[in-house]
Amino acid sequence: MLDLLKKPDIKALLFDGNIGLEKENIRVHRDGYMTLTPHPFGNKAKHPYIITDFSESQVEIGTIVCNNPDEVYDQLENLHDIVTTTISVEYSEPEFLWPISNPPLFNSGEEIPIAEYDDENIEKHRYREYLAEKYGKEIMLYSGIHFNYSFNLKLIDRIHHELGRTDDIKYLKSEMYMRLAKNCYMYSWFPVVMTAASPVFHGTFMDEGEEVGGGRFLGYSSMRNSKYGYWNKEQLYLDYKSLDTYIDSVVDLVQSGKLYSSAEFYTPVRIKPKGKYLMKNLRDGGVNHIELRMFDLNPLDKNGMAKADMKLIEYFLIYLSTLPDFDYTPELQELSFKNHLASSAYDLDSGFITLNGKTQTIKEASLEFIGRMREFFTLMEHEDALGCLDEAELRVRDQSRLYSHIVYEGIKKEGYVRFGIHRALHALRLSNEKYYLLKGFEDMELSTQALIKACLKLGVTYEVLDRKDNFIRLTREGHTEYVKQATKTSKDNCASILLMRNKYLSKKLLTENGINAPDGRLYCEPEEAYNDYEYYAGKQIVLKPNFSNFGSGINIFKNGFSKEDYIAAVDMAFSRSNEIIIEDYFDGEDYRFLVIGNEVQAVSKRIPASVTGDGISTIKELILKKRHHPLRGEGHTRPLGFIGMGAEEELHLKMHGMSFMSVPNKDEVIYLRNNANVSTGGDSIDCTDVVHPSYKELALRAAKSVNAVFCGVDIVAKNIKEPMSDDNYTVPELNFNPSIKLHCYPSVGQGRPIGETVVRFLFDGLL
Amino acid sequence: MLDLLKKPDIKALLFDGNIGLEKENIRVHRDGYMTLTPHPFGNKAKHPYIITDFSESQVEIGTIVCNNPDEVYDQLENLHDIVTTTISVEYSEPEFLWPISNPPLFNSGEEIPIAEYDDENIEKHRYREYLAEKYGKEIMLYSGIHFNYSFNLKLIDRIHHELGRTDDIKYLKSEMYMRLAKNCYMYSWFPVVMTAASPVFHGTFMDEGEEVGGGRFLGYSSMRNSKYGYWNKEQLYLDYKSLDTYIDSVVDLVQSGKLYSSAEFYTPVRIKPKGKYLMKNLRDGGVNHIELRMFDLNPLDKNGMAKADMKLIEYFLIYLSTLPDFDYTPELQELSFKNHLASSAYDLDSGFITLNGKTQTIKEASLEFIGRMREFFTLMEHEDALGCLDEAELRVRDQSRLYSHIVYEGIKKEGYVRFGIHRALHALRLSNEKYYLLKGFEDMELSTQALIKACLKLGVTYEVLDRKDNFIRLTREGHTEYVKQATKTSKDNCASILLMRNKYLSKKLLTENGINAPDGRLYCEPEEAYNDYEYYAGKQIVLKPNFSNFGSGINIFKNGFSKEDYIAAVDMAFSRSNEIIIEDYFDGEDYRFLVIGNEVQAVSKRIPASVTGDGISTIKELILKKRHHPLRGEGHTRPLGFIGMGAEEELHLKMHGMSFMSVPNKDEVIYLRNNANVSTGGDSIDCTDVVHPSYKELALRAAKSVNAVFCGVDIVAKNIKEPMSDDNYTVPELNFNPSIKLHCYPSVGQGRPIGETVVRFLFDGLL
Repeated sequence: MLDLLKKPDIKALLFDGNIGLEKENIRVHRDGYMTLTPHPFGNKAKHPYIITDFSESQVEIGTIVCNNPDEVYDQLENLHDIVTTTISVEYSEPEFLWPISNPPLFNSGEEIPIAEYDDENIEKHRYREYLAEKYGKEIMLYSGIHFNYSFNLKLIDRIHHELGRTDDIKYLKSEMYMRLAKNCYMYSWFPVVMTAASPVFHGTFMDEGEEVGGGRFLGYSSMRNSKYGYWNKEQLYLDYKSLDTYIDSVVDLVQSGKLYSSAEFYTPVRIKPKGKYLMKNLRDGGVNHIELRMFDLNPLDKNGMAKADMKLIEYFLIYLSTLPDFDYTPELQELSFKNHLASSAYDLDSGFITLNGKTQTIKEASLEFIGRMREFFTLMEHEDALGCLDEAELRVRDQSRLYSHIVYEGIKKEGYVRFGIHRALHALRLSNEKYYLLKGFEDMELSTQALIKACLKLGVTYEVLDRKDNFIRLTREGHTEYVKQATKTSKDNCASILLMRNKYLSKKLLTENGINAPDGRLYCEPEEAYNDYEYYAGKQIVLKPNFSNFGSGINIFKNGFSKEDYIAAVDMAFSRSNEIIIEDYFDGEDYRFLVIGNEVQAVSKRIPASVTGDGISTIKELILKKRHHPLRGEGHTRPLGFIGMGAEEELHLKMHGMSFMSVPNKDEVIYLRNNANVSTGGDSIDCTDVVHPSYKELALRAAKSVNAVFCGVDIVAKNIKEPMSDDNYTVPELNFNPSIKLHCYPSVGQGRPIGETVVRFLFDGLL
Repeated sequence: MLDLLKKPDIKALLFDGNIGLEKENIRVHRDGYMTLTPHPFGNKAKHPYIITDFSESQVEIGTIVCNNPDEVYDQLENLHDIVTTTISVEYSEPEFLWPISNPPLFNSGEEIPIAEYDDENIEKHRYREYLAEKYGKEIMLYSGIHFNYSFNLKLIDRIHHELGRTDDIKYLKSEMYMRLAKNCYMYSWFPVVMTAASPVFHGTFMDEGEEVGGGRFLGYSSMRNSKYGYWNKEQLYLDYKSLDTYIDSVVDLVQSGKLYSSAEFYTPVRIKPKGKYLMKNLRDGGVNHIELRMFDLNPLDKNGMAKADMKLIEYFLIYLSTLPDFDYTPELQELSFKNHLASSAYDLDSGFITLNGKTQTIKEASLEFIGRMREFFTLMEHEDALGCLDEAELRVRDQSRLYSHIVYEGIKKEGYVRFGIHRALHALRLSNEKYYLLKGFEDMELSTQALIKACLKLGVTYEVLDRKDNFIRLTREGHTEYVKQATKTSKDNCASILLMRNKYLSKKLLTENGINAPDGRLYCEPEEAYNDYEYYAGKQIVLKPNFSNFGSGINIFKNGFSKEDYIAAVDMAFSRSNEIIIEDYFDGEDYRFLVIGNEVQAVSKRIPASVTGDGISTIKELILKKRHHPLRGEGHTRPLGFIGMGAEEELHLKMHGMSFMSVPNKDEVIYLRNNANVSTGGDSIDCTDVVHPSYKELALRAAKSVNAVFCGVDIVAKNIKEPMSDDNYTVPELNFNPSIKLHCYPSVGQGRPIGETVVRFLFDGLL
């Protein structure tokens, strides 16, 4: 077997399994009491990412299936960030995620709200009532993390081939999963040792034990995994000879009435099918993955579980999957359950594990097991796994490094409630810090990140089809939408898009529809434009490409210009597009109205790239300094763009008698461009609530003039707060791919959740 | 006044008036008999370009309003080409346009079919019955050309300003048009002299006169303009003092019952409003243009009127518009009518014109008038006008150069019917020669030309919005469609377009929908692709850009390849796109299925660019020779593309052990590329009627998989005539902007009228 696993391609596949996580947290108020508010993430029976567990106040997040711990950690963090930031502002009183597996404060068991469901899913509520009746509501508040693991399907294929087997591959698959599951049962005590983090609980939950920091302590590192955990009323024994016998024995337990359903079979390990956890699915489709259920919330990690532990667990599972098969007898089942309970002892030297007839302290057993794992990963020459094991060994040898001990000390010092709330507040602060980024998607445009974030929140499944192209597929209940760059969707028709892309035609249609647009001419050849210099000399004009985007290649001449400057600006525009426009300049402030459907969703005032002098630095130095702003970056992955130092900025400075080497006076504002796009270093100020309604009506009419559904309407206005009139505004262009980040993350003012608006619009229609 | 007209901007405006033409022809069979078939161009009451005049067999074409004679000649030619080529194939028996103003053969006046109208427009039919009753059907068959002329509105503005007038501009406009109209009446004899071309008629029309070539001659150059023309039963006199008095006097004539309507007032000149020719419109909106109605069809010109004559008429009108006002008394009205009739004398020396109390021969009067015009255009320093006048003078001095004389001689030699039919056949031959081109639109893509041609034929008005962008607007009865590059329309949604544009995603969706697509990988960085050389070595692969179009940047390796070749191909693909695909090569023949809506409209087999050896020439020489083919050209304005001599062709030859300097054997076919796009010099063979229906069904499913409405489905098949099966085809890509010229103008096989298909689809929905 080991020879097989050392083949490079098989080894690669062995280490290329899949991971998915589920995590529960109770929602609490600042005072540590669980909240009684309704779940704020829509239909909990249908949401693919954010639902409730037993209680209405118990948020459960589930990641998509990921390829590795890095990815799953990112996914966990994204969902955690969305939930924490949402509940912190959703209700009149801020809410937080209680970061400890043991429950927060509550007034009485009576008060604990069972999760509510609509009529269609009333069965889910009934099952919870049955559990409350049978086990009591309090114990249902234990919250933890489930770690789901599946093999790479190609690994099973390859082994099947290497073993020369000719039977259906599904048999080997069942065998491999059953073998892994049994070994997981045998060694389920080890992950508990490594991840236990709930030594202390509150007296409102259980009035027993020694007082620690206002809470209680019973000598366990993890209450959930101790005898006080959430177990079946009696030990149940199953037939693990084959997948079929296993399924039969679960079905027997349900039919005999000992279990409500397979879901009531509480074990640290579950053998799971694809789809709902029904024995029928397991019988029909075979095993899809293994679920480990023993992990405590780790209050020391922002998201509830350390990435290092995810890695350790994956290596643990990889190792177990290479162990030989054995007969998992009722005796061994009883033994492994005892070992599991024993592993929750707070002191690794005073708890005992019995294996192969040998009883050792938890520490001894752990060290021996780590040693055996190390042998395997040494043979596999896997450095990262060995590093993980070194780290694990350190923690076992020095118990003060165990989470349970650190948490115990923290609670002792701060008190149970304050410790939990402080960790929750700290996590929320971290979540808010780079609020615009979505982990694992940082290479994609910020607008697309905002859209995916909205999907996670609103329960729409997403698939990234082409990262570089920012092309995603969204699905909800059989309804599919394709979206590129956040606003290119099925809702707009091709002709509208092309009309908006052609700025000259946009203006023509605006004008035909009675909307002011700057009077201008279209040029297909530079010479034609050169020849018209005399016509423009003395006027205030804008020269711009007919087809480009993001404000590149635009020059505005307000105060006279030489033929040389004019030709340079013509050439600059032609370098971006095969047609250019020269049009009248209209003096006013620059606004972007975001139209989606029949509504203006947001309005931003846009200010051209600028620096403010300090009396010492050159403009170049000021530009470079401004680049350090955390919201600024290159490309479309940051809310604001860098200020460029190219030909356009140089020409602009020259027109104002300056260069990059000029030193502005202190507090003097120097503009680097005339166009105000944030992508060329400009700033955006949210004005959604202050613009006069007549301008919103104008923006809607402008979008309608080209039949646009998603449309960025640029309006230059004298005073946006006064009613629109025939001579106080112009509409220089329409944008078919309007930036949403401009409105989500303005430099100044309230950000607008346009990502959510887009998703709602795509799936629910007009808003 | 002359000083005013010499101001450069006013002079420019004076020469920048507008022209529109209407032309009638009777449809005839090869034997010269008028046809009795129905008008083949749709609803004649609503078609903006092609209607009928009096008779069902009398086609009337009307151009849009044009800026100059060149443009209006092109427009006339386009419509003429469409009508002639259509009627030559529309019916079981070919039909032609009778090129002479005098009628063709007909069996009896009874037989002449009056134009039929639907119930909504039954009034038009009734009016024609009234005319038939009053004047006889025969005379209604006279066909001619009406020349409509309007001033540049800015000219009227400028003159109004220069004259310091403060009244409403509409008064000056009326004055200018009334003055021009009166002068047109006074000099209407002159254009008759210059353009008369119907000296001979047939005995079936009128059994009088001297026999010439089987026809009859009465000594007139133009029967229509002679006393045998189409005039009111009595001379009618009007009050030309002002526009209002003029309108009043026409209204009086109608109310007194002398005229059925203003349309029955037959004069060589009409004062016309915008829209329908109703006095109400003239009263409300003023004069829109002047209509000159005296022009004979010129059988010597392919399209019925020489461009030189259009110029001469424009200069004639410009000159008249500068003459002073005068009182157009009933005496002068009588005189001008007499002069008009007199001008139709065949011999310019034996007819007389009386002006200002002086009677001269037509020749003398013409020469004097040309002399006065020459004075004016000399003052205006207008070379082109002077050239035109020189030419006119030549014709007046040497009568044998007059059309009427040339036509007379022709008929005398060939016979009336044969002369007419020969001219018609000659014109048809010219129309068919560059059948794919649309005059005045040669710079636009051929696909867009085909679409505009379809609009002209089907009666959809078009407007070119951006020539370089090939962006047009089509309108029919209030329904507007925007079209770019012939197939980018409002019918496709933005997301579908983007899915097709991304070839990698197209294949993903095809595969998800159970359609074979080549297995492949997407690369965002050249290095990633370089690193996979070993993986591909020995396979047959296609390397192509993920986003480009028209087959550029594609390489196919079928017979092994070095790493060097591989890297070159990767770089070539990356030079066209920021993502590339490397996919399995599938051996088969390359077909393009054009899907529009729910139907496959055409199928073409595509063959890569190739040359056939002659045993002497190098490949380079053979390529250059092939470029002379009349259907080939650069860009998208010719049915077939040039074969390139770039890096891709060079690499292809190298892979086959050749270079551009190799000399192929006689009849040896050398392929220059592996991809078969016509734009890279390939050939297309129409296969619409031979492909197995299962492939059409496949193409529809393929288009559906991305929700495409307009879709070019590329299918590589082993044998397109056999039923499709899982292993005999692949679909390498979908095209959101499929070429329609490929199907309209194949190298081999039947062309498909896809331009018309597109227009019908846009306006009438699914076909």
